[in-house]
Amino acid sequence: MKGRLAVIGLGPGEDALLTPQALAALADAEALYGYGPYLDRVPARVGQSRHGSDNREEGTRAAAALVHAAKGAIVAVVSGGDPGVFAMAAAVCEQIEAGPPAWRVLDVRVVPGITAMLAVAARVGAPLGHDFCAISLSDNLKPWDAIERRLDAAASAGFVIALYNAASRARPWQLGAAFERLRRRLPATTPVVFGRAVNRPDERITVATLTDADPAGVDMATLIIVGSAETRVIERPGLPPLVYSPRGFAQAGRADSIPETSA
Amino acid sequence: MKGRLAVIGLGPGEDALLTPQALAALADAEALYGYGPYLDRVPARVGQSRHGSDNREEGTRAAAALVHAAKGAIVAVVSGGDPGVFAMAAAVCEQIEAGPPAWRVLDVRVVPGITAMLAVAARVGAPLGHDFCAISLSDNLKPWDAIERRLDAAASAGFVIALYNAASRARPWQLGAAFERLRRRLPATTPVVFGRAVNRPDERITVATLTDADPAGVDMATLIIVGSAETRVIERPGLPPLVYSPRGFAQAGRADSIPETSA
Repeated sequence: MKGRLAVIGLGPGEDALLTPQALAALADAEALYGYGPYLDRVPARVGQSRHGSDNREEGTRAAAALVHAAKGAIVAVVSGGDPGVFAMAAAVCEQIEAGPPAWRVLDVRVVPGITAMLAVAARVGAPLGHDFCAISLSDNLKPWDAIERRLDAAASAGFVIALYNAASRARPWQLGAAFERLRRRLPATTPVVFGRAVNRPDERITVATLTDADPAGVDMATLIIVGSAETRVIERPGLPPLVYSPRGFAQAGRADSIPETSA
Repeated sequence: MKGRLAVIGLGPGEDALLTPQALAALADAEALYGYGPYLDRVPARVGQSRHGSDNREEGTRAAAALVHAAKGAIVAVVSGGDPGVFAMAAAVCEQIEAGPPAWRVLDVRVVPGITAMLAVAARVGAPLGHDFCAISLSDNLKPWDAIERRLDAAASAGFVIALYNAASRARPWQLGAAFERLRRRLPATTPVVFGRAVNRPDERITVATLTDADPAGVDMATLIIVGSAETRVIERPGLPPLVYSPRGFAQAGRADSIPETSA
């Protein structure tokens, strides 16, 4: 018998965004590894063991799951959102590269999920409708000046910017510094979307301008989208505004257009 | 009775990646609008009308769906992948902004989906495990020099790059020009992933280096991921290689680490 390892994306918040592929992979697993709150989202199943760990222990969690799978078990590592976006899939690959040869011949499969920026974007309209980027504001593993360089490059080149890992108790100042940095290059009126706990009962979505954007209240459950200079806000009577980035330059309302992607 | 409009992401390829939220929204709709091949993925239902159109008619399709919803119907516009990423959600917002006041008070909802870059990334490991961007190579609605500026900025600042709308019969040269541009700034050995028809029976995934990356055979169903200088390839005996971008700089194999995102 040969072990297998699946790295599974649970999507954001509730199960309405969990894919059938992820459900099947969860049902298949004999052992689940993950950050405690993510494991709590998976219903218990007889005969399936659970191995929770702190969210700062990605490397050791990935190694433990690989050791278990290499013994012949069907193991799953769970991530919120998509496991390939600032989450467990890269941690597993890092361990495989550094680990014993037996880990390279394991059947490793990544099951994608709806990542937070897509869920937050959907809630407000289409802020990611034009070229965009995703930046983790965590400077635990990369120098802050690399993050600043990326913020500058993205804002100057016209990318909409999704900010992951925007703030935590251990990293309280980075988001304010990022907003300061972006204010040098983007219009004061640039829309900023704060999406907290998206798709959960305590979801909170707010829209500000870059001038007024306030890091207070932002935590690890918050995903932020900073528009480009082209991003627009449509005010609607009695409804929250729509925020969107037009598909092209100066063409809102123009009839046609870019072919829709079919990739 | 008040009309509603849902803009629904079908995910890539087969239904294993279609979310329950998307399924429910499809079941709810009285009328479906979309590019023909996407409509073909939705099982027929008695009493549900279908309005297919060409993939270059996004603006007129969005307007037709809004007109229909404003008459009081429950209408859905379907997109492959995620509707917010180079797809119909922005087209709908553009029409709302330019359209009659009645469209601003419609109940408009976007249902996210697994976008192609997440599905392709999952197939090869974790190439999007570090900061990344998504660029549409279509110059139908933005000037080519803006695309070149974004490619330069992204490569120089260390972003992994996902290329959407990489090539079509009407845009045969753009991808080759993009590879040329990227070769000036990225190492010759930078991994490039070609993912065609991901999650469909005719799926084809290949990994090349930037030097060898060949635009031939790339079409509208192909999503391309160009690594950063940090992106790595793990060769595996008897298995396809894993491609991943480490979470931080020069730390593969290091124990711990960036807190996993919980957004």
